Amino acid sequence: MLLSSRFCLSFPNEACLLISRTQHFTMSRSPDNLFCPEQSFYGTDSEKTYTEGSIHPIKVGMRKVNLSKTYTLQGMAFSSFPLYDTSGPYSDPSAAIDLQKGLSPIREGWNSERNDIEASLPGVSSGLNGRKPYRAKQGCSVTQMHYARKGIITPEMEYVAIRENQQLETWTERFSLNGKSYRSVTPEFVREEVANGRAIIPANINHPELEPMIIGKNFRVKINANIGNSALGSSISEEVEKAVWACRWGADTVMDLSTGDNINLTREWILRNSPVPIGTVPIYQALEKVGGIAEDLNWEVYRDTLIEQAEQGVDYFTIHAGILIDFLPAAMKRMTGIVSRGGSIIAKWCSAHNRENFLYTHFDEICEILRAYDIAISIGDALRPGSIADANDEAQFNELKTLGELTLKAWEFDVQVMIEGPGHVPMNLIEENMQKQLEYCHEAPFYTLGPLVTDIAAGYDHVNSAIGGTLLASLGCAMLCYVTPKEHLGLPKKDDVREGVIVHKLAAHAADLAKGNPVAWLRDNLMSKARYAFAWNDQFNLSFDPARTRQAHAESSPDNTGNTTEDNFCTMCGPDFCSMKKSQEVTKE
Amino acid sequence: MLLSSRFCLSFPNEACLLISRTQHFTMSRSPDNLFCPEQSFYGTDSEKTYTEGSIHPIKVGMRKVNLSKTYTLQGMAFSSFPLYDTSGPYSDPSAAIDLQKGLSPIREGWNSERNDIEASLPGVSSGLNGRKPYRAKQGCSVTQMHYARKGIITPEMEYVAIRENQQLETWTERFSLNGKSYRSVTPEFVREEVANGRAIIPANINHPELEPMIIGKNFRVKINANIGNSALGSSISEEVEKAVWACRWGADTVMDLSTGDNINLTREWILRNSPVPIGTVPIYQALEKVGGIAEDLNWEVYRDTLIEQAEQGVDYFTIHAGILIDFLPAAMKRMTGIVSRGGSIIAKWCSAHNRENFLYTHFDEICEILRAYDIAISIGDALRPGSIADANDEAQFNELKTLGELTLKAWEFDVQVMIEGPGHVPMNLIEENMQKQLEYCHEAPFYTLGPLVTDIAAGYDHVNSAIGGTLLASLGCAMLCYVTPKEHLGLPKKDDVREGVIVHKLAAHAADLAKGNPVAWLRDNLMSKARYAFAWNDQFNLSFDPARTRQAHAESSPDNTGNTTEDNFCTMCGPDFCSMKKSQEVTKE
Repeated sequence: MLLSSRFCLSFPNEACLLISRTQHFTMSRSPDNLFCPEQSFYGTDSEKTYTEGSIHPIKVGMRKVNLSKTYTLQGMAFSSFPLYDTSGPYSDPSAAIDLQKGLSPIREGWNSERNDIEASLPGVSSGLNGRKPYRAKQGCSVTQMHYARKGIITPEMEYVAIRENQQLETWTERFSLNGKSYRSVTPEFVREEVANGRAIIPANINHPELEPMIIGKNFRVKINANIGNSALGSSISEEVEKAVWACRWGADTVMDLSTGDNINLTREWILRNSPVPIGTVPIYQALEKVGGIAEDLNWEVYRDTLIEQAEQGVDYFTIHAGILIDFLPAAMKRMTGIVSRGGSIIAKWCSAHNRENFLYTHFDEICEILRAYDIAISIGDALRPGSIADANDEAQFNELKTLGELTLKAWEFDVQVMIEGPGHVPMNLIEENMQKQLEYCHEAPFYTLGPLVTDIAAGYDHVNSAIGGTLLASLGCAMLCYVTPKEHLGLPKKDDVREGVIVHKLAAHAADLAKGNPVAWLRDNLMSKARYAFAWNDQFNLSFDPARTRQAHAESSPDNTGNTTEDNFCTMCGPDFCSMKKSQEVTKE
Repeated sequence: MLLSSRFCLSFPNEACLLISRTQHFTMSRSPDNLFCPEQSFYGTDSEKTYTEGSIHPIKVGMRKVNLSKTYTLQGMAFSSFPLYDTSGPYSDPSAAIDLQKGLSPIREGWNSERNDIEASLPGVSSGLNGRKPYRAKQGCSVTQMHYARKGIITPEMEYVAIRENQQLETWTERFSLNGKSYRSVTPEFVREEVANGRAIIPANINHPELEPMIIGKNFRVKINANIGNSALGSSISEEVEKAVWACRWGADTVMDLSTGDNINLTREWILRNSPVPIGTVPIYQALEKVGGIAEDLNWEVYRDTLIEQAEQGVDYFTIHAGILIDFLPAAMKRMTGIVSRGGSIIAKWCSAHNRENFLYTHFDEICEILRAYDIAISIGDALRPGSIADANDEAQFNELKTLGELTLKAWEFDVQVMIEGPGHVPMNLIEENMQKQLEYCHEAPFYTLGPLVTDIAAGYDHVNSAIGGTLLASLGCAMLCYVTPKEHLGLPKKDDVREGVIVHKLAAHAADLAKGNPVAWLRDNLMSKARYAFAWNDQFNLSFDPARTRQAHAESSPDNTGNTTEDNFCTMCGPDFCSMKKSQEVTKE
């Protein structure tokens, strides 16, 4: 391959890169699919609001739900509730959305104030919106961890502090649960958590459209939605649509796991139109480059792929650097072998060449690339169990120890790290996973797929995953990767994405409650107050999926119009058997 | 009221009883709705089989799934797998189903061999199928607990032992997990567990159509499906259809919670056509009898209702005997007061009359009625929390202590007992619920509604409940009451029943795995073997909902026909990115 060698690293053939990124593609569907009239979500009772930073000139979007009455809790009156909002500009009626141009690059100004970056392809603009790719100047590190360790509070750090607090600082500091008191999230606390590796803010300098978010056990539990086509199904427009809707329903990050044609172009469209961090598994594209033959992979192809995706703006990479050749015999004795796609590719390569995993042997060079763009590494668990029979076995935990070693190595480069986790694990073995991850991986955030608590739930694996995920997250897991009802069966469609996102929002929120998050408790308390007050619209608007809730209630109303919303009962029990109604009558007596 | 006074108790007006039970009702829908071609469930790969008893002349139905290949596990070869089958005769092609006549009364012979029962209305036949109601002869107890304590193994006990083992005794005794060995379920073990109150077999002598099942922490976790109309919706035919389909999808018991018109007739149709135990909350019907005015309730109306339902064949009653007048002040201070329908009725009565709960003061007489028919009592948790803010509070745990006292009292009468539980409980407070229930209630089976782990999941409360239920059941809860997606919103329809049943089957099964149930592990292991072997039909048939799984896979196949079933990949990853395929290639190398 012809590679120019500038900077401290090799870069891919520029022409090749530009061609792949400037191919023209027209959305086959109307962008109307990407918008949802607010009314079907929140009725007429909500508005998009922005909170400004006090350190940096930033504004953080939230959705304010106006309540139909004022509820009093712990001496505070609430007539509205600000929701954490992952939907980005798509839910702002004043935002001009043009998919061809991409979202407004809100972070551009933040980056340009730093004198540690430079255009990586001088004089050349590329991609959908003609934006120039940047990288760190030689010898510079531009990661959030780097700044945090220097004591610098970045705009990203202030942004996530505001976001986590949801304008509820007063409530948070007044809240108590079992005698415990709470503090709101300060930018300084964010900085500390990022500095010590307990939290990450995935935010590639080449993804200026991003609204920063934080992943760590001392913050709200987050969820990721996977999208991406395979060789057998879906189109770019379907994937962009799924990505935008996944954010609308509540995904905190999106992974593009495309493996079919047009990997590069699909990713460009998704990145330019995504307000949330985008993750990828670069080995998928590397494998396509060598014709799908794992044995033909090599470090150079992989490295070039990393840089290509880095310049596009991918915010975190899953890299299966912890699967060592010594671990393969134990993995091959398992009931279901290796079920990580990336892991199985590496295993095949190691086995064919009888050589150590090149992602492990080149880990330092990988870290050098990552720190030049501030891409977080999500160290892949290639040996996660694919069946409950294989859970918590030697193969899994040996790899986990290696992930811990790699964590320390990445931190030497100021690279932000999270650790991927299982997989299939029965309920009784979940706690051990969390304990070992914290112990082996030095409290780097844990990012898990489920775990699924049984192998036989095909068709309902989203629920299966939410069950295991709730328990694991309540014990400290920082982000849950969603699973859809199509898991084990086929490629998810938009409706599957919705089911997957919402039930994992549920899991994450339930974990937040278990951990005593004051903002999470407030939302539940307001919901219960609204329920007891028969305030139906408030119940719809405070639920995870107001559109679904509104519709289900309307279907059940006597005239199918939802016109019982003013009544103090519902069809579940009818007027004579409503316990809450009776309970209130007792109080009045 | 005119009541004849025979036996040790008063009985309701016979004419009244007969009229209410012989009203004619024609199913408005075709019974075809109640049958499902086996093919859409299990392809052509399954058959209904029966296992005969060795002590009693009984035969226990199961569904044998024939596998497409032979799988070897722990040295045993499996070419088929017998599934625990709750569907009754509806899934037996050789059974003649006539809804007007009801199911075949398989237990009639078992009862008639006992010389401790007699016709309760001599010379009179009643109900749908003209069957005579029975009761214990004066001074006799006919409960399973009574027989168990006498050392007698009843047909019901042998039936449930066979059922729990699923013909897998050899596997069970060869199975080991973390060095622990297992024993299969013997009829004698069942007897012991029933004798000491740790398990119950709800089986009214007047429900001869019943296929016995057992509820207790040392057996498979069970699930209950609630059906029943309210004043605002649904018809008898819809409720019968929901009941039959609930069993088909996997409900172990069904509660008829009807509160609208035709309560008696609805129940008669459900009972005569139900192969699973039927539970009710008799206070609902008692309240209808006094015109819906809680204050007008009295012991006599309630007692007559119990007897009426006892003679129809209800297998367990929810009775809110543990809510005492002293507990009301604490309950009224809560965020959501009292959310148990029965509990709120009793609270209103106590409050209006300033008198102690008449279900508590008449508890001995209640037990006398229950033991005359062998109706299990499910002692209601009137003060279960209706919001996470109210979880594990003084009101809840004070009532739980009282439920424990009532348990001991009921056991004095040989009455089988289970204890109802919450409700809304955040993840971190679930374990305390199980610990306190075991401690206060002497290991009587715990039967819980969820718990829901957040208040804001309207529209997805079935998942919410499955999350809390899995954790609680893995710690020892014996039966989970399902929650449907319509919870908090309206009356569930047939599709909601399906979602509710399946996700709670998932929860129960995941708990069985966590508890190390060898039969549950075998099913998961076979599924994983089938998955690794790309045996698609076996994967469909071993899943909870083969119809759903088959359909989802077909939708995702390139030609929408499911014709990838012979291929060793699926549309989720496509042929080049299948990890299992690659993993197998590594093994072969």
